Amino acid sequence: MQDLSSLTNHQIRLAARPVGLPTRENWSFTTEPVAEPADGGVLVKTLFLSLDPAMRGWMNDVKSYIAPVGIGEVMRAGGIGVVVASKNPAFAVGDHVSAGLGVQEYCLIAQDQLKRSGIFKIDTRLGTPTQWLNVLGMPGMTGYFGLMDVGQPKAGETVVVSGAAGAVGQTVGQLARIKGARAVGIAGGKAKCDWVVNELGFDACIDYKGGSVRDGLKAHCPQGVDVYFDNVGGEILDHVLARINRKARIVICGAISQYNNTAPVQGPKNYLSLLVNRARMEGIVVFDYADRYPVAVAEMAGYLKDGRMKSKEDVVSGLDTFPETLLKLFNGENFGKLVLQVAS
Amino acid sequence: MQDLSSLTNHQIRLAARPVGLPTRENWSFTTEPVAEPADGGVLVKTLFLSLDPAMRGWMNDVKSYIAPVGIGEVMRAGGIGVVVASKNPAFAVGDHVSAGLGVQEYCLIAQDQLKRSGIFKIDTRLGTPTQWLNVLGMPGMTGYFGLMDVGQPKAGETVVVSGAAGAVGQTVGQLARIKGARAVGIAGGKAKCDWVVNELGFDACIDYKGGSVRDGLKAHCPQGVDVYFDNVGGEILDHVLARINRKARIVICGAISQYNNTAPVQGPKNYLSLLVNRARMEGIVVFDYADRYPVAVAEMAGYLKDGRMKSKEDVVSGLDTFPETLLKLFNGENFGKLVLQVAS
Repeated sequence: MQDLSSLTNHQIRLAARPVGLPTRENWSFTTEPVAEPADGGVLVKTLFLSLDPAMRGWMNDVKSYIAPVGIGEVMRAGGIGVVVASKNPAFAVGDHVSAGLGVQEYCLIAQDQLKRSGIFKIDTRLGTPTQWLNVLGMPGMTGYFGLMDVGQPKAGETVVVSGAAGAVGQTVGQLARIKGARAVGIAGGKAKCDWVVNELGFDACIDYKGGSVRDGLKAHCPQGVDVYFDNVGGEILDHVLARINRKARIVICGAISQYNNTAPVQGPKNYLSLLVNRARMEGIVVFDYADRYPVAVAEMAGYLKDGRMKSKEDVVSGLDTFPETLLKLFNGENFGKLVLQVAS
Repeated sequence: MQDLSSLTNHQIRLAARPVGLPTRENWSFTTEPVAEPADGGVLVKTLFLSLDPAMRGWMNDVKSYIAPVGIGEVMRAGGIGVVVASKNPAFAVGDHVSAGLGVQEYCLIAQDQLKRSGIFKIDTRLGTPTQWLNVLGMPGMTGYFGLMDVGQPKAGETVVVSGAAGAVGQTVGQLARIKGARAVGIAGGKAKCDWVVNELGFDACIDYKGGSVRDGLKAHCPQGVDVYFDNVGGEILDHVLARINRKARIVICGAISQYNNTAPVQGPKNYLSLLVNRARMEGIVVFDYADRYPVAVAEMAGYLKDGRMKSKEDVVSGLDTFPETLLKLFNGENFGKLVLQVAS
């Protein structure tokens, strides 16, 4: 076991709740000595952190599916780390784990917090650490259960997914194809759209920055839309609602276009298309499926292995870049799953 | 068989598409001689017509679950009539029937139009002609299948229904109670709300004209909302979305608050509550359940008979009053199912 007394834990804490896009002023940078775990606890060194649109919601002081991050608390983040000290027989020094580590270099997890942290050992034979934050991690699980349980695509149906080049989107489109459906993405910029089609094998991808989403849907969904997996909300949701088929399923996974709004959320003014088409709009929160993750991970790892599924991560290095790196999500700059590399 | 040559058929036709509320200028009043049915056809004398919020939608030239009424066509309306001439062995003179009769005194239905008209003989032992337009008719079937198939209330859950004093609303609330759920109505005015509670037996009714729907929901749904049956849309939908429970079901049946809008429809800005609560919003169109009507009618007739279900109709007499009578729906003036009596 390493000498811990020489180590310092750099942390990023929520200093103030943002209005609109979070800026550097919303964060504080603190250091703490690294402490030994007590009986039953573990100390994890952070390797990679997952940066996700949902983090923006956790910064607001509103009731949601999870409590907000408190002012002065280390910012919540899931990540992959390596166990550097353990007083728990279930974890050995050197084990790679996935857990809610927070935006910090070291995470001390006491025995009574293990369950809450969601810690589990990852099998690096199934995927790399960053793949465990992407296709094999929360975004992959979100895409998997949202698509399979709520979207329920049938072979030959048309599945549309927004945020197609993002972490959840890439899983959804590729999985839709694997299940025999037609996959149409919506993403921002020609480079992303080309990649979604050429590398991920989507049937088409509509560039919302380069043209009309309405026209794109008309051109690329000639049979209408059977499943829409929505990560963005706003006008794009309305455009898709205008083209859904009878008994369509709309998976509400997120609404990134609305997260930094200072005005009220824009509701889907075409929601009565649900009535006309006897369609369904349903929300999904990935945590509800926790006991089924292992089955989904095994399936997805199989697709990674046989090449039918690709997992692209956009890795940025340096804990201190966190405030700016997070904004890539909201500026649409990330290309694949956004990951912050904290140590190697 | 009656001498038909002496009879005149007074009709009301769509003259122009309305902007906002329909006025007398949107209608034309025509007369035609009454004709004998050809082989296989029937002639029906209209007794009662059903006036429904959906009629407003049929007047717009937009794609919906049913084609719009054409300019110059007799306005579409369902009704109860009596067969006055028949060249079809399935229908005898004197039979009471339910059919798409249109806003006119006589409806000639040719053999090849029988199916499209939805004509069927009603059993007046199960209910009166106006009950066959209400609890045993389209509104009752809409309430029944929307609640049972989409809403799926469980005993002890809280069901909220807007337009509670209307045709669909009264069915939904009473049926929710019969199924063991708590029924909370939303209606306009103290008189309606008192009636919904005292006569129909709802647990509570919130007066949207006399106070805050938000506060009313808080007071009367202390355990939150499990099923919301929405007939009105607009702000009320948003207020309910703010109080739904996990896995809530929202039945989108209509949006009467938006039907006469000249501005775009107001989308539910709280729709992300579906995500937070893993809830579902789903549209329903009653025609999809046509082959199950007989089973539902038998069940509902049983409740009428044993007194657990009441059926209230607001009957206005005179074909010529149609333009003004229709507006009662949009002014919130009708008290129970709105019916136009054309003959006795």
